[in-house]
Amino acid sequence: MLSGLKRFIVGQPLATAQARHERLSKTTGLAIFASDNLSSVAYASEEVLRVLILAGVGALGLASPIGVAIAMVIAIVIYSYRQTILAYPQGASDYIVAKDNIGTLAGLTAGGALLIDYTLTVAVSISAGVAALTSAVPGLFPYRVILCVSAIALITLGNLRGLRESGRLFALPSYLFVAGIGALIVVGLTRYVAHGVPPATAAPAGDPLVPLTAVLVLRAFASGAVALTGIEAVADGVTAFKPPEVRNARTVLAILGAIMVTLFVGTTALADVYDIVPRTEETVISQLARLIFGGGVVYYYIQAVSMLILVLAANTAFADFPRLAFFMARDGYLPRQFGNRGDRLVFSNGVVILAVVAVGLVILFDGDTHSLIPLYAVGVFTSFTLSQSSMVRRWARTRPAGWGWKAAISALGALTTGTVLVVVAATKFMEGAWIVIVLIAALITMFLAIRSHYTSVARQLSLDGLQPPPAMSTTVLVLVGDLHRGVVQAIQYAQALSPAAKAVYVETDPERTRRLEERWGKWGLGAPLVVLSSPYRSLLGPLVDYIDHLRQQSPNHMVTLVIPEFIPARWWQQLLHNQTALLIKGAMLFRKNVVVTDVPYHLRD
Amino acid sequence: MLSGLKRFIVGQPLATAQARHERLSKTTGLAIFASDNLSSVAYASEEVLRVLILAGVGALGLASPIGVAIAMVIAIVIYSYRQTILAYPQGASDYIVAKDNIGTLAGLTAGGALLIDYTLTVAVSISAGVAALTSAVPGLFPYRVILCVSAIALITLGNLRGLRESGRLFALPSYLFVAGIGALIVVGLTRYVAHGVPPATAAPAGDPLVPLTAVLVLRAFASGAVALTGIEAVADGVTAFKPPEVRNARTVLAILGAIMVTLFVGTTALADVYDIVPRTEETVISQLARLIFGGGVVYYYIQAVSMLILVLAANTAFADFPRLAFFMARDGYLPRQFGNRGDRLVFSNGVVILAVVAVGLVILFDGDTHSLIPLYAVGVFTSFTLSQSSMVRRWARTRPAGWGWKAAISALGALTTGTVLVVVAATKFMEGAWIVIVLIAALITMFLAIRSHYTSVARQLSLDGLQPPPAMSTTVLVLVGDLHRGVVQAIQYAQALSPAAKAVYVETDPERTRRLEERWGKWGLGAPLVVLSSPYRSLLGPLVDYIDHLRQQSPNHMVTLVIPEFIPARWWQQLLHNQTALLIKGAMLFRKNVVVTDVPYHLRD
Repeated sequence: MLSGLKRFIVGQPLATAQARHERLSKTTGLAIFASDNLSSVAYASEEVLRVLILAGVGALGLASPIGVAIAMVIAIVIYSYRQTILAYPQGASDYIVAKDNIGTLAGLTAGGALLIDYTLTVAVSISAGVAALTSAVPGLFPYRVILCVSAIALITLGNLRGLRESGRLFALPSYLFVAGIGALIVVGLTRYVAHGVPPATAAPAGDPLVPLTAVLVLRAFASGAVALTGIEAVADGVTAFKPPEVRNARTVLAILGAIMVTLFVGTTALADVYDIVPRTEETVISQLARLIFGGGVVYYYIQAVSMLILVLAANTAFADFPRLAFFMARDGYLPRQFGNRGDRLVFSNGVVILAVVAVGLVILFDGDTHSLIPLYAVGVFTSFTLSQSSMVRRWARTRPAGWGWKAAISALGALTTGTVLVVVAATKFMEGAWIVIVLIAALITMFLAIRSHYTSVARQLSLDGLQPPPAMSTTVLVLVGDLHRGVVQAIQYAQALSPAAKAVYVETDPERTRRLEERWGKWGLGAPLVVLSSPYRSLLGPLVDYIDHLRQQSPNHMVTLVIPEFIPARWWQQLLHNQTALLIKGAMLFRKNVVVTDVPYHLRD
Repeated sequence: MLSGLKRFIVGQPLATAQARHERLSKTTGLAIFASDNLSSVAYASEEVLRVLILAGVGALGLASPIGVAIAMVIAIVIYSYRQTILAYPQGASDYIVAKDNIGTLAGLTAGGALLIDYTLTVAVSISAGVAALTSAVPGLFPYRVILCVSAIALITLGNLRGLRESGRLFALPSYLFVAGIGALIVVGLTRYVAHGVPPATAAPAGDPLVPLTAVLVLRAFASGAVALTGIEAVADGVTAFKPPEVRNARTVLAILGAIMVTLFVGTTALADVYDIVPRTEETVISQLARLIFGGGVVYYYIQAVSMLILVLAANTAFADFPRLAFFMARDGYLPRQFGNRGDRLVFSNGVVILAVVAVGLVILFDGDTHSLIPLYAVGVFTSFTLSQSSMVRRWARTRPAGWGWKAAISALGALTTGTVLVVVAATKFMEGAWIVIVLIAALITMFLAIRSHYTSVARQLSLDGLQPPPAMSTTVLVLVGDLHRGVVQAIQYAQALSPAAKAVYVETDPERTRRLEERWGKWGLGAPLVVLSSPYRSLLGPLVDYIDHLRQQSPNHMVTLVIPEFIPARWWQQLLHNQTALLIKGAMLFRKNVVVTDVPYHLRD
């Protein structure tokens, strides 16, 4: 029944040989790898404005210069990652790059940061996608959490079925989104130049809450830095491109950078000149689109494609997280269950864990993008910084032609992202960055504990130095509480294993022992009956003592305890019987040289 | 570790021979069996007033005649139960009396009603006890639910430790309570005669909500009928008395009746003449005591002993419920786990179930006695009516000397309690009586289903008609996924069971099979290696097919599948390994003629 349900949800299993490796053209590849990064246009400018508004409406004018500063960071990081592609033509996650070039601890830090980053990508993107929807249809605002959870459930389902492979369809939303936001910027700026600013429709916000300080400007910058999330995706997936892979990947990365800078600076400037004031119930993009296109078809188009690209961005994390977990599990830093491919050739455990944690975050943060943002950037910039620093060390070590220039670019990248990391961690510390820092430390500790366990297990199980073992002997006992068909079957079975099998009975009432012994002659099948007395009515105590006595006879002697157990036809009937077998197994689990075997007797109804 | 915790909570186990059977004198017996019944004085009059007040303050004067009517019912039921004791000198619960004399269905109805009654006794008594406390210390009123839950937890703990046996100490509160309420009545009535009514201190309640109808008077009567709960306790426990048991028990029952009628009529009359208006935050008894004794030491004494006797009343249900559950389990109508005595000779499962349900009720009803009352009386009067009717049939069948008179008394009892039952069920139907009626029906269905399951199991397991079985043969297989010390140990074990043991390997990757086969020569200990191919990477599918093929060879052939399993030293490490053994056991559980055996290999750290 359970397996039928699984078939219905996940679909028929696929054979290993059915694994396809579709290669992507530049056009498709751009769309697929771009969604994560480009989708942040939907909320990054807004995050800058949300910080500036604390110092009053007058401070909003600082959004444009901050936007330009962030665009410069984007350009530097893109340039630097194009070099990483040259060095890792087979593609490499920041985890591997850092581990290879700096060391284990750096790798694990990047790995932990990325796992957190991917989880937050899902939570943030879905929250922002639902915000795009509720901005257009305000009546849905009270249902945002349930909408978020449903969206994650749908994406999870698609991924468990292995939907990832049907890539082409997924390319469309990215282009539709770029077209929509592009049109918004062009029409918006044209109108502004031609007609100037329309009269403000929204009531201006109240008095400034805080003075406009340098720290506030840095906080605004740190909030906008989420615009860099997802840039690393192309470098991760070089092998997904058609040959020449490296060249195609580098071209795509450059184009992605150009589009991103244009869209991000464009929307930030628009928000600036149109005097947009950020509000909880409507996104900045929605306000802009409503103002510029006036709530018609084009407005709904922009909201729809914003939602689509955000859902797609969440979907990329469902490919990235399980893949990284697979690599880390392969290296022994995560439970090896993450290395198993499910029925549909997907790393199902990674998909499920990601979904569960993301749903938890969405519920905890009430589906509010803005509250999740302070957690987001720390992980991203940690892995950026480690990855760029690793490249510096790599160039210095391998010294290819022109390595000095390459190292200088990577160093600039490392310095820039490192500075942003410090700014983000410092200005957002109390708002939630500390949680991520503690979490990364906790994850590293966990990775090391897991690895150390696997190493220890491998050492203990290794056959190296093992002498060919002498033959083993075993005493077979049948635990008897009564005499019925199940017990008779168990005695038969024990005698099939060993003709010298004995029956063991724990006595709590001498009268019952007498009755059992009377019937034993006929139904004991000739097996000797050992009676153990139990003054405290405990079944376990005397049994454990007797078995302890037997199993200590020789190191190569194993005691087999056969327990007759009947299996009712319906699950609830199980509740009507004493769970003796379970109890005994629990008691024997940590004793050496004892094997507990239950012999099931199947009941009909 | 868990077992250490259990020792700490429950105490050292007691030997069966340590079971003591203390006999009670009349003085102690009266106190112990009286608490359940007498404690209802603390809330029964109040329940009458709470209904009457709906028709305005003027209607409260009807409390006294209603109190007298209820006292008459008490007298009739006491008289009738004194006869039951003659017929069942070994003591008998209403379940047994009804089952013996009318039939199974009547017995199960009484049994279900009593189980519900005992559960409500705990919930009502504890709520009323906490109300006595919060009346005296109003600051505790907001914490009443947590106080109720803590009280139930403490009583449960005491009962799990077998505190029941130390009876003498438990006798004190009953006498202190009788003394306190007796003093209240005497002083109160004396003052009334001497000085008349003091000016009313509480503001009179508002306008009448409903007109004063006959139905309202019947509802008030039905509410007060809870004063009869617990009367059956003496007849239940005849054997607990010192010889002559029957005579002592009958004497005690008569004295109990006399005290109960005095206290109940007395407090009702007091409330009437002192113009007490019932309030949520303070009990009627507390108001009376405050008015008559003026809030000093005597007032606190009365509140304290009210609380104590109510806790004691709850405690009696902790003896009654598990005992009834034991009887019903012995007859096969409840899971047989209720028949097991725990380490401390207590029927622990009954105690725990009762505590859990009572805590649920207290939380659900917000620790409010008044809301629980409509549920209470239905169960009590159902079992009373069935028990009295059973006695009528018994006298008519056995026809002892003077049976006509005895039958007439029992018939009067049955008629009276039956009438009260109809009144309670009808007037309280919508307030909650319907829940109890539905619940009794559901319980009866459950009793019958359980019994039918046990009967069917007994039939299927019976050795009657079984031919002495031919010897059984077994094929022993070892499931191999890799080669390590745990696997080598499992192969050794399999060969100890059967020299012809074979190893089975499920192939998902031909390269790994090749490597395994290379090492098999040295470490396979001569066992043949069967390789099953699995194109869908499923371990289970090919294995199940192979085993199905083997086990169908002969009806007396059993396939033993040995699974090497390593047991990590710490529980969390278990999460780091694939739960293959569990999966395979689940798949084989419902297949006949397959035994799955895991051979544990214990890891050190």
